[in-house]
Amino acid sequence: KSTQAQAQAQAQPRASVAPPLMQKVAPDLARYTDDVLFGTVWERPGLAKRDRSLVTVTTLIATGRTGPLQGHAGRALDNGVTPRQLSGLVTHLAFYCGWPSAVAALEPLDALFKARGIDTATLKDARALLPAPADDAQRAAAVKAALAGTAPALADLTNDVLFADLWRNPALSPRDRSLVTVAALAATGASDQLDFHLGLAQRNGLSRAELAEAITHLAFYAGWPKAMAAAGRLAKADGADDA
Amino acid sequence: KSTQAQAQAQAQPRASVAPPLMQKVAPDLARYTDDVLFGTVWERPGLAKRDRSLVTVTTLIATGRTGPLQGHAGRALDNGVTPRQLSGLVTHLAFYCGWPSAVAALEPLDALFKARGIDTATLKDARALLPAPADDAQRAAAVKAALAGTAPALADLTNDVLFADLWRNPALSPRDRSLVTVAALAATGASDQLDFHLGLAQRNGLSRAELAEAITHLAFYAGWPKAMAAAGRLAKADGADDA
Amino acid sequence: KSTQAQAQAQAQPRASVAPPLMQKVAPDLARYTDDVLFGTVWERPGLAKRDRSLVTVTTLIATGRTGPLQGHAGRALDNGVTPRQLSGLVTHLAFYCGWPSAVAALEPLDALFKARGIDTATLKDARALLPAPADDAQRAAAVKAALAGTAPALADLTNDVLFADLWRNPALSPRDRSLVTVAALAATGASDQLDFHLGLAQRNGLSRAELAEAITHLAFYAGWPKAMAAAGRLAKADGADDA
Repeated sequence: KSTQAQAQAQAQPRASVAPPLMQKVAPDLARYTDDVLFGTVWERPGLAKRDRSLVTVTTLIATGRTGPLQGHAGRALDNGVTPRQLSGLVTHLAFYCGWPSAVAALEPLDALFKARGIDTATLKDARALLPAPADDAQRAAAVKAALAGTAPALADLTNDVLFADLWRNPALSPRDRSLVTVAALAATGASDQLDFHLGLAQRNGLSRAELAEAITHLAFYAGWPKAMAAAGRLAKADGADDA
Repeated sequence: KSTQAQAQAQAQPRASVAPPLMQKVAPDLARYTDDVLFGTVWERPGLAKRDRSLVTVTTLIATGRTGPLQGHAGRALDNGVTPRQLSGLVTHLAFYCGWPSAVAALEPLDALFKARGIDTATLKDARALLPAPADDAQRAAAVKAALAGTAPALADLTNDVLFADLWRNPALSPRDRSLVTVAALAATGASDQLDFHLGLAQRNGLSRAELAEAITHLAFYAGWPKAMAAAGRLAKADGADDA
Repeated sequence: KSTQAQAQAQAQPRASVAPPLMQKVAPDLARYTDDVLFGTVWERPGLAKRDRSLVTVTTLIATGRTGPLQGHAGRALDNGVTPRQLSGLVTHLAFYCGWPSAVAALEPLDALFKARGIDTATLKDARALLPAPADDAQRAAAVKAALAGTAPALADLTNDVLFADLWRNPALSPRDRSLVTVAALAATGASDQLDFHLGLAQRNGLSRAELAEAITHLAFYAGWPKAMAAAGRLAKADGADDA
């Protein structure tokens, strides 16, 4: 009987991740989806599936492609991201991609939480902020200096709300915030801001190899040009480190 | 009785602008929405609420985040933007963000106009163009020179349709067109075009402080990186003025 | 009787392409749509209507503005684009704009194919790849050199999947892939990648004039700033050719 089951399993093709509509309308895309994206890229070492989920969900929200969001947020839960982290990610992206991008994520997340029976009372923030990084005063002074003559209110909001509050909110670890921020910047082509955040990400515990792998993963969700531009900034950061 | 009402008002918490779904799925975002975005940013001096509405509505259309558009266009009417100005803004953005972005705004605006009982016959353009600015021939020659060898048809359309017609259409004042254009360029990361338009905006009557405040406001609707990039261009323009 | 019909035809205004909703909510935009976009731009020589359809459909998918996609994909069929080419275009854009942008195109295309009675069995790929271009080994080595130290997996995927497989898939000709790629890069502001692809496009058979006309056409669908940025890159490429 076991041999018969084994033979049946071998006779059946591997289940396709590509949905029937894709197999029908864009059969080549279905093949790439099964063989390359899910067969190879998601299985690559160098970046945990949990982190690949953070990069994927971030890219969907940052680029306003919320159709597949409920599905990928569910996959994120399966890969170990907590509901509170998903909620914290949405709040984080409100600042990095604008309120409307975050707002568009609320309904898909609500539908997911309902479908999984998740109690949203667990999403409430305890409001005990993490300590500020040792070099934060230096960073705040640099922001103030850069914007003082041009947009001082933007400098104050950057220091008082973004860094003194959002980044220290324990809903997401600083390492996860950095991964999400790098993915959001890369997905939206904010190359100039990547220079600072690729460095901060490494200070927050992401390895150089994880960042390269996140950018490679993101090629499939934000498109090749965005990944190539981000890889260029990572190469530049490497050069600066060597110098 | 008056004292009783006063006591009741004090006992009730300030009404939250954040919708119930946001309070449930992203409670921290709801807090930032009430305390920072509506409690502080919208109330800041330096840019009229009417102008904040123009920046907000422009950002929603430019970035294709039309979910909150009907609500924010309604707020724009409350803040003193006229229906004809909203209609003119959509037409203006067709050129600066592409036809499909403008087309996506038609249904939300139509729903708003119906809900408010606004007669769309008032949106018809009288077609008496405003005079061309004194330095327009110089601007047209620069466009022609820049594009002559590469894309002469694009130069002709820029001069004959954009500047000789759209910008002189009285549905929106040149000042409002500049505010909308700067917001659209900043929201879509068109930094190179900002250099010219930050200068034109000041010639059209927007103050340096209003532009800085518009960029700060836009951080919340298009995301921090877009505002930081635009502030960088404003700083550069300031430097050029000083030189 | 013929004279009567003639008189009637003359009495009737030219049919408007602008939909009634646009005429109502944004009457000036309707006028530009009829007089400039469809009355002039689509009728311009220098780029075939079939190619204008490829540029338009690409821009809609690349920018996530899928509302008008079914209509424009139908126009593409009318202009001579085949169903298999539309399907191949979607697969191509998955790589250049990200999977979610391609996925969002599946339902509108499926609805179109159903409405036209198109048998989706014809979309299956025969899988006999086109030969690699003569200079492909040189291109692959350059990619490997540029990314070797930073993101070697991204280099391998670029060479093994994008160029050794996708670009050689006969569903779209290399010339059409280049037109679609240039339009996608221009529409999403990927200026740095345009430098390489404007050159490849000309090696793949697109004329300099066709590229300029494609960029001019794209101004109306992706917005003026995107077209101006792309024209700048085309001018730069011209300069490099002259040198």
